[in-house]
Amino acid sequence: MESDSSYVLWECCRFTFLSVYTVFKAFYYVLKTLILKILPRKEKSVADDVILITGGGRGIGRQMALQFSRLKPKHIILWGRKEEPLQKTTEDVQGLGVSCSYFVCDVCDRELVYKTGEEIKNSIGDVTILVNNAGIFNGALVLNDTEENIQKTFAINALAHIWAYKAFLPGMISQGQGHIVTISSMLGIMSLRGASSYCGSKFMTTGISEALHLELEEYPNIHLTSVHSYQVQNDMFQHLKL
Amino acid sequence: MESDSSYVLWECCRFTFLSVYTVFKAFYYVLKTLILKILPRKEKSVADDVILITGGGRGIGRQMALQFSRLKPKHIILWGRKEEPLQKTTEDVQGLGVSCSYFVCDVCDRELVYKTGEEIKNSIGDVTILVNNAGIFNGALVLNDTEENIQKTFAINALAHIWAYKAFLPGMISQGQGHIVTISSMLGIMSLRGASSYCGSKFMTTGISEALHLELEEYPNIHLTSVHSYQVQNDMFQHLKL
Repeated sequence: MESDSSYVLWECCRFTFLSVYTVFKAFYYVLKTLILKILPRKEKSVADDVILITGGGRGIGRQMALQFSRLKPKHIILWGRKEEPLQKTTEDVQGLGVSCSYFVCDVCDRELVYKTGEEIKNSIGDVTILVNNAGIFNGALVLNDTEENIQKTFAINALAHIWAYKAFLPGMISQGQGHIVTISSMLGIMSLRGASSYCGSKFMTTGISEALHLELEEYPNIHLTSVHSYQVQNDMFQHLKL
Repeated sequence: MESDSSYVLWECCRFTFLSVYTVFKAFYYVLKTLILKILPRKEKSVADDVILITGGGRGIGRQMALQFSRLKPKHIILWGRKEEPLQKTTEDVQGLGVSCSYFVCDVCDRELVYKTGEEIKNSIGDVTILVNNAGIFNGALVLNDTEENIQKTFAINALAHIWAYKAFLPGMISQGQGHIVTISSMLGIMSLRGASSYCGSKFMTTGISEALHLELEEYPNIHLTSVHSYQVQNDMFQHLKL
């Protein structure tokens, strides 16, 4: 409510610094992308990896399972709430000659996540690539959105990521290697009218992923990737108008 | 997993556009700040405003109540979980000659928020300035944080904001004016190691505020301010080391 010259000067310096920093950062990534295009890095082998994909029966999860299959990982595990799509994707992955299994597991159910995690560890082994993908989209204005929808969106899209970290990260830490993939969204960086709880939940994963990324700095072989996709052509977004 | 030249070109264009856009935006704000310093806008009158501050007994909430008092609003309402600090701040505000009352209200309790909101509407009138300030800080690494702490942090720092919108925004819309203030944090824009759930919750308010801001564009006299403060010297952050 009060302002003085030093504050204004400080704000000017801060904005100038931030804008110059952003430009350099952007050009760094452009340059990196170009160099990687000309001299691509050797593709990481996933031959020894046990990959878990939440929400693996349909949409992005199913596509990832099929794409991962081409890289011949040790095993792919699919989680989801409905058995039928899980079974279909599992069969398709097995058809590509990759060992695959599924578990009916609602990621909101914290205790079930921990229990199923334990079961996997004992029967298949430590998960080395965790893909937090399960999510729901709820297109509504804040005032029109129901409390149940709002809470469900946060529970599935954001809180569930934390339960999965707690279930599988200790295993990665004890092995000294692993990879966590967060399927976020462009709406985890910038908001959209009429998608408040979805945006809120995806912003939340952005914040948590960033904090976790800083935490994992002491483990150079545990990687974290946050994916910020634009509109995806699947059932979930069929009613979204941009 | 696959990339082609058009994708790389698109990424280059996008980064260049975003960086140029950011520079222009930053300079716009610097210029605006400077112009406002030389030619300050007339201070908004709050003489007819009923101001509600959540978490109003202590910390930032208490300071805001005292600062608002100097502007002589119609009425200040304080919410909090503990009666003693609320009573103290209420007396201090009244001591400055401003009408003030408090309600013991835990913002996590959705039904209580709605009930107390209705009570206020009937006894005092529509809230015209809502300050979503109540928050807790939970400094822990993701793996060390308890599930209870995580859920409480999201419930108080983020979900509660939505319950308050639902309680007071319809009144602002029917009056065609109002102001919502979100007390977020710098940690709602960038994360910090060891504050994952706090960062996640503050990122979440950033996302929701942005979406709500877009929703409120059709009501030019309903304003939204998101405050991203740096470290605040109060009890809540006394153990935080930067």
